[in-house]
Amino acid sequence: MDDETLLMTMLFDFFGDLLTEKQREYYDLYHNEDLSLSEIAVGAGITRQGVFDIISRAEKSLAEMERKTGVVKRWQETRSELTRALGIAGELLVLCGTDGQAPVMARELVRTLEGLVSE
Amino acid sequence: MDDETLLMTMLFDFFGDLLTEKQREYYDLYHNEDLSLSEIAVGAGITRQGVFDIISRAEKSLAEMERKTGVVKRWQETRSELTRALGIAGELLVLCGTDGQAPVMARELVRTLEGLVSE
Repeated sequence: MDDETLLMTMLFDFFGDLLTEKQREYYDLYHNEDLSLSEIAVGAGITRQGVFDIISRAEKSLAEMERKTGVVKRWQETRSELTRALGIAGELLVLCGTDGQAPVMARELVRTLEGLVSE
Repeated sequence: MDDETLLMTMLFDFFGDLLTEKQREYYDLYHNEDLSLSEIAVGAGITRQGVFDIISRAEKSLAEMERKTGVVKRWQETRSELTRALGIAGELLVLCGTDGQAPVMARELVRTLEGLVSE
């Protein structure tokens, strides 16, 4: 998934429910289900241009919400730091060896951070 | 800060810029700067009821954004897991003793997680 596609997916994930029902539906079909504008138009019984306009408005709306809230950027920064922490925890797990309480805790830490990164 | 106040602060932090300018201004003065409705009314040159209506609409709007996106709830859950991870990392730091690379990495891990929890 390239950066632009990932951004579109994350924007929709966070803010999709703030769109109108039609915007949400067509945006999802186009960006997430990978249907073409023409395919959506046939299914919806409207013109290809009509579908294009609705998806464009949805994209603008999502971009505006991100510009004003920075939620996706914040989450990306958090995830980047979490990934770094997970790397350190993984190395620590190796350093802890196999005896005593330390490796048990290091493993629990790795698991917890993995859970957070994959959210 | 009680749970309700914390929620109001976090909602404003995430979604404040999606409010209208007046909603944002009066909400901030009331909930964050702790001014009374009357004090805001005098400063704004409108009635106390007018201020109350604008703040009420802002509160409803923020609550609706949270209901639809769950951004604050997600962040609270993430922070709760981060706090747990920080606890484990702190105990691990103690277990690592003072020799070699392990305590250095454990300390770096604690610092990274502290940074994320305090965001």
